[in-house]
Amino acid sequence: MQLEQTLGLAAGMLVTCSMIPQLIRVFQLKSAREISKFFAILLLMGMLCWIAYGIYLNLTPIIIWNAIGAVLTSILLYAKLKYGK
Amino acid sequence: MQLEQTLGLAAGMLVTCSMIPQLIRVFQLKSAREISKFFAILLLMGMLCWIAYGIYLNLTPIIIWNAIGAVLTSILLYAKLKYGK
Repeated sequence: MQLEQTLGLAAGMLVTCSMIPQLIRVFQLKSAREISKFFAILLLMGMLCWIAYGIYLNLTPIIIWNAIGAVLTSILLYAKLKYGK
Repeated sequence: MQLEQTLGLAAGMLVTCSMIPQLIRVFQLKSAREISKFFAILLLMGMLCWIAYGIYLNLTPIIIWNAIGAVLTSILLYAKLKYGK
Protein backbone atom coordinates (compact mmCIF):
# COMPACT_ATOMS: atom_id res chain seq x y z
CA MET A 1 0.00 0.00 0.00
CA GLN A 2 1.31 3.44 -0.86
CA LEU A 3 2.02 6.09 1.78
CA GLU A 4 -0.90 8.33 0.76
CA GLN A 5 -3.34 5.41 0.88
CA THR A 6 -2.12 4.44 4.35
CA LEU A 7 -2.37 8.07 5.53
CA GLY A 8 -5.85 8.49 4.03
CA LEU A 9 -7.04 5.24 5.58
CA ALA A 10 -5.60 6.09 9.02
CA ALA A 11 -6.98 9.65 8.86
CA GLY A 12 -10.51 8.54 7.88
CA MET A 13 -10.54 5.78 10.47
CA LEU A 14 -9.30 8.04 13.30
CA VAL A 15 -11.72 10.89 12.53
CA THR A 16 -14.72 8.56 12.10
CA CYS A 17 -13.90 6.32 15.08
CA SER A 18 -13.31 9.33 17.35
CA MET A 19 -17.10 9.58 17.64
CA ILE A 20 -17.35 6.12 19.29
CA PRO A 21 -15.80 7.08 22.70
CA GLN A 22 -17.90 10.27 22.62
CA LEU A 23 -21.09 8.25 22.15
CA ILE A 24 -20.06 5.79 24.89
CA ARG A 25 -19.40 8.75 27.23
CA VAL A 26 -22.80 10.36 26.61
CA PHE A 27 -24.75 7.09 26.93
CA GLN A 28 -22.83 6.09 30.08
CA LEU A 29 -23.52 9.44 31.74
CA LYS A 30 -27.07 9.56 30.27
CA SER A 31 -26.41 13.27 29.87
CA ALA A 32 -25.76 15.43 26.82
CA ARG A 33 -26.17 18.91 28.25
CA GLU A 34 -22.69 19.99 27.14
CA ILE A 35 -23.06 18.61 23.63
CA SER A 36 -24.02 21.38 21.22
CA LYS A 37 -27.02 20.53 19.04
CA PHE A 38 -25.55 22.73 16.30
CA PHE A 39 -22.30 20.74 16.47
CA ALA A 40 -24.17 17.51 15.69
CA ILE A 41 -26.40 19.10 13.02
CA LEU A 42 -23.57 20.90 11.16
CA LEU A 43 -21.33 17.82 11.36
CA LEU A 44 -24.13 15.62 9.98
CA MET A 45 -24.84 18.08 7.14
CA GLY A 46 -21.12 18.22 6.33
CA MET A 47 -20.86 14.43 6.21
CA LEU A 48 -23.90 14.22 3.91
CA CYS A 49 -22.13 16.72 1.61
CA TRP A 50 -18.99 14.53 1.70
CA ILE A 51 -21.11 11.48 0.75
CA ALA A 52 -22.61 13.41 -2.21
CA TYR A 53 -19.06 14.52 -3.17
CA GLY A 54 -17.85 10.90 -2.97
CA ILE A 55 -20.75 9.60 -5.06
CA TYR A 56 -20.22 12.34 -7.64
CA LEU A 57 -16.48 11.62 -7.99
CA ASN A 58 -16.84 7.88 -7.31
CA LEU A 59 -14.52 7.93 -4.27
CA THR A 60 -15.47 4.81 -2.31
CA PRO A 61 -13.41 5.53 0.89
CA ILE A 62 -14.99 9.00 1.20
CA ILE A 63 -18.47 7.46 0.85
CA ILE A 64 -17.84 4.64 3.35
CA TRP A 65 -16.14 6.71 6.11
CA ASN A 66 -18.72 9.47 5.90
CA ALA A 67 -21.64 7.02 5.80
CA ILE A 68 -20.36 5.43 9.05
CA GLY A 69 -19.68 8.91 10.44
CA ALA A 70 -23.18 10.10 9.52
CA VAL A 71 -24.75 7.12 11.34
CA LEU A 72 -22.61 7.78 14.46
CA THR A 73 -23.37 11.52 14.36
CA SER A 74 -27.10 10.76 14.01
CA ILE A 75 -26.85 8.66 17.19
CA LEU A 76 -25.16 11.62 18.95
CA LEU A 77 -27.96 13.90 17.79
CA TYR A 78 -30.50 11.35 19.10
CA ALA A 79 -28.61 11.29 22.44
CA LYS A 80 -28.68 15.10 22.55
CA LEU A 81 -32.44 15.15 21.96
CA LYS A 82 -32.97 12.39 24.55
CA TYR A 83 -30.52 13.44 27.30
CA GLY A 84 -29.74 17.10 26.55
CA LYS A 85 -31.68 20.10 27.74
CA MET B 1 -17.37 26.67 -9.83
CA GLN B 2 -18.07 23.05 -10.57
CA LEU B 3 -20.53 20.97 -8.54
CA GLU B 4 -17.84 18.80 -6.91
CA GLN B 5 -15.84 21.87 -5.86
CA THR B 6 -18.95 23.45 -4.33
CA LEU B 7 -19.80 20.20 -2.53
CA GLY B 8 -16.23 19.75 -1.26
CA LEU B 9 -16.09 23.35 -0.07
CA ALA B 10 -19.48 23.13 1.69
CA ALA B 11 -18.60 19.75 3.23
CA GLY B 12 -15.21 20.89 4.58
CA MET B 13 -16.66 24.15 5.89
CA LEU B 14 -19.61 22.46 7.64
CA VAL B 15 -17.51 19.72 9.26
CA THR B 16 -14.77 22.14 10.40
CA CYS B 17 -17.13 24.88 11.56
CA SER B 18 -19.31 22.39 13.48
CA MET B 19 -16.65 22.52 16.22
CA ILE B 20 -17.26 26.25 16.82
CA PRO B 21 -20.72 25.92 18.51
CA GLN B 22 -19.34 22.97 20.52
CA LEU B 23 -16.45 25.09 21.80
CA ILE B 24 -18.82 27.98 22.60
CA ARG B 25 -21.07 25.56 24.53
CA VAL B 26 -18.23 24.13 26.62
CA PHE B 27 -16.70 27.54 27.42
CA GLN B 28 -20.12 29.05 28.25
CA LEU B 29 -20.96 26.19 30.64
CA LYS B 30 -17.33 26.03 31.90
CA SER B 31 -17.85 22.29 31.98
CA ALA B 32 -16.54 19.48 29.78
CA ARG B 33 -17.43 16.43 31.84
CA GLU B 34 -19.44 14.86 29.01
CA ILE B 35 -16.76 15.47 26.39
CA SER B 36 -14.69 12.34 25.84
CA LYS B 37 -10.93 12.93 26.03
CA PHE B 38 -10.44 10.10 23.53
CA PHE B 39 -12.84 11.81 21.12
CA ALA B 40 -10.67 14.95 21.09
CA ILE B 41 -7.37 13.00 20.93
CA LEU B 42 -8.46 10.62 18.11
CA LEU B 43 -10.03 13.49 16.15
CA LEU B 44 -6.84 15.57 16.49
CA MET B 45 -4.66 12.63 15.40
CA GLY B 46 -6.95 12.00 12.42
CA MET B 47 -6.77 15.65 11.36
CA LEU B 48 -2.96 15.61 11.60
CA CYS B 49 -3.00 12.54 9.31
CA TRP B 50 -5.27 14.43 6.86
CA ILE B 51 -2.80 17.37 6.90
CA ALA B 52 0.11 14.97 6.12
CA TYR B 53 -2.05 13.40 3.35
CA GLY B 54 -2.81 16.86 1.94
CA ILE B 55 0.85 17.92 2.03
CA TYR B 56 1.91 14.65 0.38
CA LEU B 57 -0.65 14.98 -2.45
CA ASN B 58 -0.51 18.81 -2.53
CA LEU B 59 -4.25 19.21 -1.81
CA THR B 60 -4.56 22.76 -0.43
CA PRO B 61 -8.24 22.58 0.73
CA ILE B 62 -7.52 19.38 2.72
CA ILE B 63 -4.54 21.09 4.40
CA ILE B 64 -6.42 24.32 5.20
CA TRP B 65 -9.65 22.76 6.56
CA ASN B 66 -7.80 20.24 8.68
CA ALA B 67 -5.33 22.83 9.97
CA ILE B 68 -8.26 24.99 11.16
CA GLY B 69 -9.97 21.83 12.49
CA ALA B 70 -6.83 20.77 14.36
CA VAL B 71 -6.59 24.18 16.05
CA LEU B 72 -10.28 24.03 17.07
CA THR B 73 -9.94 20.43 18.31
CA SER B 74 -6.83 21.40 20.32
CA ILE B 75 -8.91 24.10 22.02
CA LEU B 76 -11.57 21.46 22.84
CA LEU B 77 -8.87 19.21 24.32
CA TYR B 78 -7.62 22.17 26.37
CA ALA B 79 -11.19 22.79 27.57
CA LYS B 80 -11.53 19.12 28.51
CA LEU B 81 -8.29 19.24 30.53
CA LYS B 82 -9.37 22.52 32.17
CA TYR B 83 -13.09 21.90 32.81
CA GLY B 84 -13.48 18.13 32.52
CA LYS B 85 -13.03 15.56 35.24
